[in-house]
Amino acid sequence: MSAELLGRKLIDCGTKIVAVGRNYAAHAKELGSAIPKEPVLFLKPTSSYVREPDPIEIPKPITEVDYEAEIGVVIGRRAKDVFEEEAWNYVRGYVLALDMTARSLQNVAKEKRLPWTVSKGYDTFTPISKFFQLKKTPIPPLSFWLKVDGQTKQKGCTSDMIFSIPFLIHYISGIMTLNEGDMILTGTPHGVGPVKAGQTITAGIASPAVQMTFPVITRPD
Amino acid sequence: MSAELLGRKLIDCGTKIVAVGRNYAAHAKELGSAIPKEPVLFLKPTSSYVREPDPIEIPKPITEVDYEAEIGVVIGRRAKDVFEEEAWNYVRGYVLALDMTARSLQNVAKEKRLPWTVSKGYDTFTPISKFFQLKKTPIPPLSFWLKVDGQTKQKGCTSDMIFSIPFLIHYISGIMTLNEGDMILTGTPHGVGPVKAGQTITAGIASPAVQMTFPVITRPD
Ligand SMILES: [Mg+2]
Ligand SMILES: [Mg+2]
Ligand SMILES: [Mg+2]
Repeated sequence: MSAELLGRKLIDCGTKIVAVGRNYAAHAKELGSAIPKEPVLFLKPTSSYVREPDPIEIPKPITEVDYEAEIGVVIGRRAKDVFEEEAWNYVRGYVLALDMTARSLQNVAKEKRLPWTVSKGYDTFTPISKFFQLKKTPIPPLSFWLKVDGQTKQKGCTSDMIFSIPFLIHYISGIMTLNEGDMILTGTPHGVGPVKAGQTITAGIASPAVQMTFPVITRPD
Repeated sequence: MSAELLGRKLIDCGTKIVAVGRNYAAHAKELGSAIPKEPVLFLKPTSSYVREPDPIEIPKPITEVDYEAEIGVVIGRRAKDVFEEEAWNYVRGYVLALDMTARSLQNVAKEKRLPWTVSKGYDTFTPISKFFQLKKTPIPPLSFWLKVDGQTKQKGCTSDMIFSIPFLIHYISGIMTLNEGDMILTGTPHGVGPVKAGQTITAGIASPAVQMTFPVITRPD
């Protein structure tokens, strides 16, 4: 079996997506949020994954959702209370992911001091690329980008993360055990914004060459 | 295989716990929260399940966590956009569950308008009873209780839920697809409060006879 297919099966047997908020200083700033002293964590359901060629669906009555391009780290084996120095041993591979967010719902939730779950958890709200692996650790900085209808909206690099991948694995695994196939979404850089039905998102990584395309539609009745 | 063992396997292959907040009016009131117009949802990771005879662990430096006794509904098959009238067809069985909550962390999170994930997501923060089934639908009202060191703290009945089980399945499945083995925690009645290491929680349902016991310890280093 190819590494790509193995990775797909691995992700399909995962049981959680642990997403990190505000892990790039310029993005925290653009949302008017404080730069966190420890990682901001939230969960997305694995039912929100979508892969090419399927579309991102905007649920009515919402008419726009925000894209957030992020590097996803796929866990390869059970990780509990992992030391930062050992963390790379628990990584099996990576995806490029979008943490789609119904910002209007998230803002209301924040206002009411309620969870972000619904705003982040709809079906198709976590588009992911093909799975890929990197041989050397620590991994080289990954530069990634996102375009809407061909226009560049986000450009980021993992070297700008506030909390590194090994630190995130250490931190999260000290709270909740990570299992094979679980995913960590490592946060989004500056430049988030809305898409509407009819638009198309493309996103990619420079090296290794990863690219993905997702049309945006209104969720069918 | 016994129904109980089948249920256990089913839960072990689930990928999410969708928890409902403030589903009993008297509990919303005791936390000073508004009675919700639609269900308040949040996710707990399945890595937080714990079964007898294992203990509930309080992670340092926290010294107390709140119990919340809740009825858990175990989904039997893929549920997407389910009509309320069809919802019982998607239920395979039930558990009695505790939605353990680090209230101090949750209160800080609310203050900062951040997710409740960490306060609800530690390993052992979702103790569950054996799985049981009920033949008739709609199910009869389930009366359940929780004691700390033998002293009654919570008494509730599913007939007091603001949002019924079929409505919750309809509502949640319209947002995120529920899969086989997924769990809905239906909210807790009045009487939540803290436990410390050294105490013991017992909880049960009157009929069918379900009972469970969980000692509380400090999480070992
Ligand atoms: Mg989950
Ligand atoms: Mg994000
Ligand atoms: Mg609860």
